[in-house]
Amino acid sequence: MSTTGTAWTPERRARAALTFICEPGRPDLSRFVAEQGAPDVVEALLASSGTAAWSRRARCLDLDALIARAEALGARLVVPGDDEWPAPLAELDRIEPVGGMCGAPLALWVAGRRRLDEILRPGYGALAIVGARACTRYGQALATDLASRLAGQFPVISGGAYGIDIAAHRGALAAGAPTVAVMAGGLDEWYPKGNTRVFEQILDEWAVVSELPPGMRPTRPGFLARNRLIAALSAGVLVVEAAMRSGAVNTAHWAGALGRIVMAVPGPVTSGMSETPHRLIRDHEAELVAGPADVRALLCAPGEQLEGPWMTPTRPLDGLDPRLLAVREALPGRGSLTVDQLASRARCTSAACDGALVELELLGLVEQDESGRWRLRRPR
Amino acid sequence: MSTTGTAWTPERRARAALTFICEPGRPDLSRFVAEQGAPDVVEALLASSGTAAWSRRARCLDLDALIARAEALGARLVVPGDDEWPAPLAELDRIEPVGGMCGAPLALWVAGRRRLDEILRPGYGALAIVGARACTRYGQALATDLASRLAGQFPVISGGAYGIDIAAHRGALAAGAPTVAVMAGGLDEWYPKGNTRVFEQILDEWAVVSELPPGMRPTRPGFLARNRLIAALSAGVLVVEAAMRSGAVNTAHWAGALGRIVMAVPGPVTSGMSETPHRLIRDHEAELVAGPADVRALLCAPGEQLEGPWMTPTRPLDGLDPRLLAVREALPGRGSLTVDQLASRARCTSAACDGALVELELLGLVEQDESGRWRLRRPR
Repeated sequence: MSTTGTAWTPERRARAALTFICEPGRPDLSRFVAEQGAPDVVEALLASSGTAAWSRRARCLDLDALIARAEALGARLVVPGDDEWPAPLAELDRIEPVGGMCGAPLALWVAGRRRLDEILRPGYGALAIVGARACTRYGQALATDLASRLAGQFPVISGGAYGIDIAAHRGALAAGAPTVAVMAGGLDEWYPKGNTRVFEQILDEWAVVSELPPGMRPTRPGFLARNRLIAALSAGVLVVEAAMRSGAVNTAHWAGALGRIVMAVPGPVTSGMSETPHRLIRDHEAELVAGPADVRALLCAPGEQLEGPWMTPTRPLDGLDPRLLAVREALPGRGSLTVDQLASRARCTSAACDGALVELELLGLVEQDESGRWRLRRPR
Repeated sequence: MSTTGTAWTPERRARAALTFICEPGRPDLSRFVAEQGAPDVVEALLASSGTAAWSRRARCLDLDALIARAEALGARLVVPGDDEWPAPLAELDRIEPVGGMCGAPLALWVAGRRRLDEILRPGYGALAIVGARACTRYGQALATDLASRLAGQFPVISGGAYGIDIAAHRGALAAGAPTVAVMAGGLDEWYPKGNTRVFEQILDEWAVVSELPPGMRPTRPGFLARNRLIAALSAGVLVVEAAMRSGAVNTAHWAGALGRIVMAVPGPVTSGMSETPHRLIRDHEAELVAGPADVRALLCAPGEQLEGPWMTPTRPLDGLDPRLLAVREALPGRGSLTVDQLASRARCTSAACDGALVELELLGLVEQDESGRWRLRRPR
């Protein structure tokens, strides 16, 4: 773990203070702070003799102690304008409130081996996987399986809760692919404690995020505010299992409000854990997803074959550039062809075909025979 | 079982002959026969010295023997214009072919205790329930349960096959509610034989239908032609379980082409039997149905509370006239009210309220107290 090493400018110190003072999810707060400047906002709160909650909290803050505590944890503060700041969070300032809550976070506390901009590379939309704490073995197995098969392409974001959340994190970790846990409390207040070992593994390999500074326990509004970050950090939210009333419904609402793709996995209609996925699909609030291919089809642009930055090799043709795939598929199952024959079959120029063959050879998918003709390379 | 007693007019005899001569599902045949008159079409086929299949079949038909065989079975011929003829079948002449097949049937062979127009009363749209022969216990239980809970409102139509079909028929029968089996072969060629006892029960209580005359074995094209009748006789087709390739896909296509409501029940994504329902829902070709309420919501007009002709009492308020429901719901949980007080709460005139109370009293839902005020009648 490493801190960013970024200097604690007055702006950064003030934003750190405001993560302590102001509860997250207050509409217009981030825009107000951006307009007034964070230091002036903190000054004003400190100068106020009123008993308003924020003024009281401002007066009881020991900012240096808070920063020391964060640095001791290896947690860094990421603020708008930093390379690591996820730009899509700004969209939270442009939507209608959900349950009275809204607004981009003022800053994020981040800990872990990787930077957020390394994990959430532009174009590789993250996939939020959320669902019931009291999930069934069916849901748990699905969350793990989907995360392990998709996280190489779409970093998996979830909330670290028991059940679906942690199963999704585990699936990504098992695949050696990225996962981000967004916590509802401070980064030294692991919740639930029972998942501590998974959180520590996520820290060791990827990143853990919170809108709240170290030392803050998660609260009920904190969970709802956290759900908005999960939705905002993702390109799509996948609900695996959830009863009629579930935090996953809230996350799906945020995703819908943010124009993210909402997806749900069906299950037995006889299971209460299928109620929310089925209601979302039935009411056309979510797309039905029965496997990884459905998620890829929804999160990739038509025809796009995302080769994720963390893509672990699965099947050799997964994520292959269509240009290469065309040449690869023009090769017969048995026998070999010349470059010109192949170019004709693949409907491309001989030069383009030649280039594709070199790349395919590097990928171990094709080889030349003694006469220089090309053939499929069989798995050995 | 009884025959219609309708005289065997030349038109009726000729249509009976054509059910033997012409394979079902030939586009434009029913319109051609309607224009030329069935007797002329049969004459022309008999007069033709050609070796075309229909002429050959026409020459080997013993129509009197066929009619005698049908009457011995208790099977009657129902033709367009008969009271019993289901008008929606004409829509098969107005759609594009599905898999090269199309066209309304020339006639239906019907056997069973009830007339089709008794079962398929206008406005009470029938519900087709179809799915896999090799269904799981989950699908079988669902088909039985949905049919038993819905058939009182929506007569259940299916094809009598093993698996989902027969489970749906059984569910309707168990509820004492109507079900129609549409056979792919003649009415003395029960297929599959293993379901004979259920077919006999359907005959004893409701009706069995075929486009083919007695003595005809079901063929593969016959099954596809039969599926078009199941779709055309229904207001909606519900797919319960079906593998990727399944006759249920064909029935769903017919339903889509006919503008019927296509519905599918989700299941575990880990089951191959969920593949077709999930694909239909995912591709927005079917609406997700997780229980009887979803089917009712799709098959009833908004706000409509269909009190099915064969409705067996379930919950006392199911299917209650909205006018009565408003008065019933205006009554407090405890205590009693005068007619005027109730009328004011239910936003109707005192006279209307009085009339509704009399009906509600007959239904055992309300009662008067000693002072003549009205109160809810509690279940005893």
